[in-house]
Amino acid sequence: MNSSHLIRDLNDKGLFTVPFTAVEITDAFWRPRQEEHRTTTIRLTLDKAEETGRIDNFRKAAGWIPGEHVGRYYNDSDVYKILEGVAYTLQHVRDEELERRADKVIDAIAAAQERDGYINTFFTLKEPEKKWTDMTLHETYCGGHLIEAGIAYARATGKEKLLHAGQAFADHLLRRFGPGGEHWVSGHQEIELALTALYGYTGHARYVDLAYWFLEQRGRGHGRGTSWEREDFGAAYAQDDVPVAELAQPLGHAVRAMYMYAAMAELVALGVAPEYESALARLWESIVEKNMYITGGIGPSAHNEGFTRDYDLPNATSYAETCASVGMVLWNYRMFLISGDGRYMDVMERALYNGALSGVSLSGARFFYANPLESDGTKHRQEWYDCSCCPTTIARFIPSIGKYVYATGKGRLFVNLYMQSAATVRIPHTGGESRWTLVQNTMYPWDGQVALTLDGEFSEEMTVSLRLPTWAHSWTASINAESVAPSTGSSYLSGGYLHLRRVWTPGDRIELNLDMPVRVVSAHPAVEDDRGRVAVCRGPLVYCAESVDNGSLSDVVVSDRTRFLRRYRPMLLGGVVELTGYNPGGAREVVRLIPYYSWDNREPGEMRVWFDNSTYEPLYVSGAMSE
Amino acid sequence: MNSSHLIRDLNDKGLFTVPFTAVEITDAFWRPRQEEHRTTTIRLTLDKAEETGRIDNFRKAAGWIPGEHVGRYYNDSDVYKILEGVAYTLQHVRDEELERRADKVIDAIAAAQERDGYINTFFTLKEPEKKWTDMTLHETYCGGHLIEAGIAYARATGKEKLLHAGQAFADHLLRRFGPGGEHWVSGHQEIELALTALYGYTGHARYVDLAYWFLEQRGRGHGRGTSWEREDFGAAYAQDDVPVAELAQPLGHAVRAMYMYAAMAELVALGVAPEYESALARLWESIVEKNMYITGGIGPSAHNEGFTRDYDLPNATSYAETCASVGMVLWNYRMFLISGDGRYMDVMERALYNGALSGVSLSGARFFYANPLESDGTKHRQEWYDCSCCPTTIARFIPSIGKYVYATGKGRLFVNLYMQSAATVRIPHTGGESRWTLVQNTMYPWDGQVALTLDGEFSEEMTVSLRLPTWAHSWTASINAESVAPSTGSSYLSGGYLHLRRVWTPGDRIELNLDMPVRVVSAHPAVEDDRGRVAVCRGPLVYCAESVDNGSLSDVVVSDRTRFLRRYRPMLLGGVVELTGYNPGGAREVVRLIPYYSWDNREPGEMRVWFDNSTYEPLYVSGAMSE
Repeated sequence: MNSSHLIRDLNDKGLFTVPFTAVEITDAFWRPRQEEHRTTTIRLTLDKAEETGRIDNFRKAAGWIPGEHVGRYYNDSDVYKILEGVAYTLQHVRDEELERRADKVIDAIAAAQERDGYINTFFTLKEPEKKWTDMTLHETYCGGHLIEAGIAYARATGKEKLLHAGQAFADHLLRRFGPGGEHWVSGHQEIELALTALYGYTGHARYVDLAYWFLEQRGRGHGRGTSWEREDFGAAYAQDDVPVAELAQPLGHAVRAMYMYAAMAELVALGVAPEYESALARLWESIVEKNMYITGGIGPSAHNEGFTRDYDLPNATSYAETCASVGMVLWNYRMFLISGDGRYMDVMERALYNGALSGVSLSGARFFYANPLESDGTKHRQEWYDCSCCPTTIARFIPSIGKYVYATGKGRLFVNLYMQSAATVRIPHTGGESRWTLVQNTMYPWDGQVALTLDGEFSEEMTVSLRLPTWAHSWTASINAESVAPSTGSSYLSGGYLHLRRVWTPGDRIELNLDMPVRVVSAHPAVEDDRGRVAVCRGPLVYCAESVDNGSLSDVVVSDRTRFLRRYRPMLLGGVVELTGYNPGGAREVVRLIPYYSWDNREPGEMRVWFDNSTYEPLYVSGAMSE
Repeated sequence: MNSSHLIRDLNDKGLFTVPFTAVEITDAFWRPRQEEHRTTTIRLTLDKAEETGRIDNFRKAAGWIPGEHVGRYYNDSDVYKILEGVAYTLQHVRDEELERRADKVIDAIAAAQERDGYINTFFTLKEPEKKWTDMTLHETYCGGHLIEAGIAYARATGKEKLLHAGQAFADHLLRRFGPGGEHWVSGHQEIELALTALYGYTGHARYVDLAYWFLEQRGRGHGRGTSWEREDFGAAYAQDDVPVAELAQPLGHAVRAMYMYAAMAELVALGVAPEYESALARLWESIVEKNMYITGGIGPSAHNEGFTRDYDLPNATSYAETCASVGMVLWNYRMFLISGDGRYMDVMERALYNGALSGVSLSGARFFYANPLESDGTKHRQEWYDCSCCPTTIARFIPSIGKYVYATGKGRLFVNLYMQSAATVRIPHTGGESRWTLVQNTMYPWDGQVALTLDGEFSEEMTVSLRLPTWAHSWTASINAESVAPSTGSSYLSGGYLHLRRVWTPGDRIELNLDMPVRVVSAHPAVEDDRGRVAVCRGPLVYCAESVDNGSLSDVVVSDRTRFLRRYRPMLLGGVVELTGYNPGGAREVVRLIPYYSWDNREPGEMRVWFDNSTYEPLYVSGAMSE
């Protein structure tokens, strides 16, 4: 097996991620959340993994303690994901107690691994004879999370025990599967992303080849197992209905789809599977235009935890799993990396600030699995779930946010997210590599004003590319207080970015001011639940109403002529811009709105994102026109 | 004739204007225009009045020089309007040379007046026997402008010669017309406004009674004269088709209509004709919703200089006379004074910053009569017109702008226009009257941030009412950096204002931040010329494209997904925020826009306000929604 010739050198890839370790977030929005994550979420999930026997399963498999496997067949994955979250957390803050706890868990994992590299406590303890018989049962899914955790932990601590466990599992796969080996369709994709990450860490092309092989197994009749046999699921449930390069319609389990699409994008980036690019474009258009909630959430149905039919986006019963929104972040960010196109970052940001962030309470201690867009007061975050993928996804996601702020290309810096921070980036260029320090000052997402100060090594012309989010219909930009005139060659617009090219000077200050008015938006008319309704957004945030602020929500009527008072309320919900809507004349308060991500953090009650739309008499419409 | 019992004491009127003499404009937008007005416009119009024989007509009528009447039968009005403009100018700046020139003109006017108070050089010199025979021939129109000029000049200089001439004319009218006298329908309304102003200055109720009588003459079959006899004009041309209290549809000559509606509103304010209020409401709705250009211009047809049928708003042939837009300011401001409702100020501001301001070049030396919304390159401002009402309207209008900034009511200050300025206002309240000084800092109309600092005498609870323009869909406000929460009793919204009630303290600082994004707006679908088209606005300003920036305009396509760079260009057109539109992806510049008022100040070329609208592929539309 040798297709390493397919793999472009990493340095030839178009774009690079600036790791979150290089970006120190200093804002009042994400930094407190990351701190809450370290002091609450990561410890809580570790505690829960202990309490629910998830960690004990490893100790049992290692023979350290007696007992049966407890819980679901994929519970190992939660432990790995928590360890990945621990690793990221340790990269932010040395936390010896946390590291000691993790080390002990890792010891149990390593001891639980079988000699041939196989690791899965469910099969080891309960059904050792059934290993590799049912593709539904998450053996590669769990193993994939082990690999990602191992890489993260090695990066964070220099300790490679978990990494070696992961690599041993990968090598186990290589011996069993791949060209000439057995067929295998991963029932829950994840191994593909893990294998490309392992290639990134080790440089061994065989892992990428195997990722490609796993993807190419799909849609060719090789899949079998529980979910394949269920009439209501079948091959499409796990995206095994057509070869991946032929995909056109998002189907099946949403998280599985996201992880697979993300892996496909990785293989495009690596030059292994350029043929996936058009499939990804088709899928992206279909999802973004026809199968995505305004929150960036996807997968409306609880039944298959996934996609149904175009424009089927009910609000009260919306599943929109937290993991799927995080998956949208993972996938869309990779779509950006293979294209440099800002529209992927737009969708990524939508999912990040809404559908994904709503997955965790402000306390960091409670989690949504499903993220409804409407509630009668009975839907609340929980401390844990029997299937706890969402809490543990949050555990590994929140500390990694910083990696999405900047990206680099040859002679180019992409400013993708506006987030107050201090960063050090290395920018490759024809003369080698330059080290820049970036100080970004902004109140984003509460305000659209951003100031970016550059310092470092400036030798030749380089481009700073500022993302202009699609919602920013108008903006202004300046360099050292001199306003920018695009289309002059040295500054131009393309792909949703304002590109500023010049030989930069230490201390150069770029200012971007994105107009951030309140927007009243409507859904595609084919979305039945939103017909005749509008939602309210500002900047990247979707807003919602809760009955704690409004009383009953059934009478709330909003229109594009509702006028909104913005008010930053530092003591409300950790500090939010609250919107108060008034009727056009201003005499009557019609609704009070908070960011969607912050709902269900106070008294229980109704919640709504989409409101009945009213057309007021045209008395306040100026002129023969509508504004 | 005694209906003075109908007249409410002025102090019982709801709202008061703060005179422009109390408001020192200090901004970079209006102040340079007023300076240009003093140094250029007012002198140029005086020169032109001299060159064209308008002033000589008075000298001839006085018998000082020999000769025939020269020019049109209403040319006297231009001289009066210029003198009114001179008076306002002198209230801003003592300008001895200007005052000397005006004094000499006034001497000629006084000498031209006949013994019985009659004054009109056309009739005195040319057809003395035809006085008061043809209601079309502007005898009351000219006399009305004399009265307004006389009051202004007396206020500015303390010299009452012109005032006495005006009052003598008013008394002449009182002897001839009114109950028991002859019938008279003023062919071009203006005398009514002048008579109420004369009441305001002298306190003599008979002038108001006469104004009311003039209005009540209309629509009762008393009108006769040239325009009545023209089949295509008839009684409706001069709003003589129905009694004014029954008016429902704007018809006829637009300027005449505006002056009449303004006078009707004055009589409502004075308590004389409360029955006019519902007619005014009907007319306002009809004009604003069906008969007004986006610029606030009215009267689409050159044929009757006026209204045609609902939604008839052609762009290339739009008449939208400068005087009619100024008339919209006059009328809408009075509608505000009788209601305290901000929607009238919205329309007033629209007319002010667009349809009216476009009437004068940046140099202050050239004028539009008609204000088209589209030009093939052949339409330009002129230095003068044979019928020069528009230049002389500009002459008296520009120096008066300051009066629209603030208004007062009992215990209440209205902040109506955002304009950097320092002002002294007297606010009546239950305990007497308080004197406040106001410093308003803002870059408006280029920016929606306003800071207002209060100082003065604060004894009891008073209300500061900040206008929230309809275009400001969202805003934020604070008092002494503490954000405002309306609906708390001490701060509330109504009638398009944010009302802030409290016992104020010297140094209190109110900040208002109106979100001012670029807006892409569409016309009512019944407006044929704008169907499938959109216009671009920001804040109070309508934008347009000129070929000097764009080349041919026929290919320009704009949509609500066009994205705009804002750029303040201090050296362009006296300093404007220029907008550059890009296609949604940002790769292609689609249009460059300047404020409509500033067009035709550079090389001649095409101009457009309404652009073809394109629906781009939905690729950049996020989610199942349109933004």
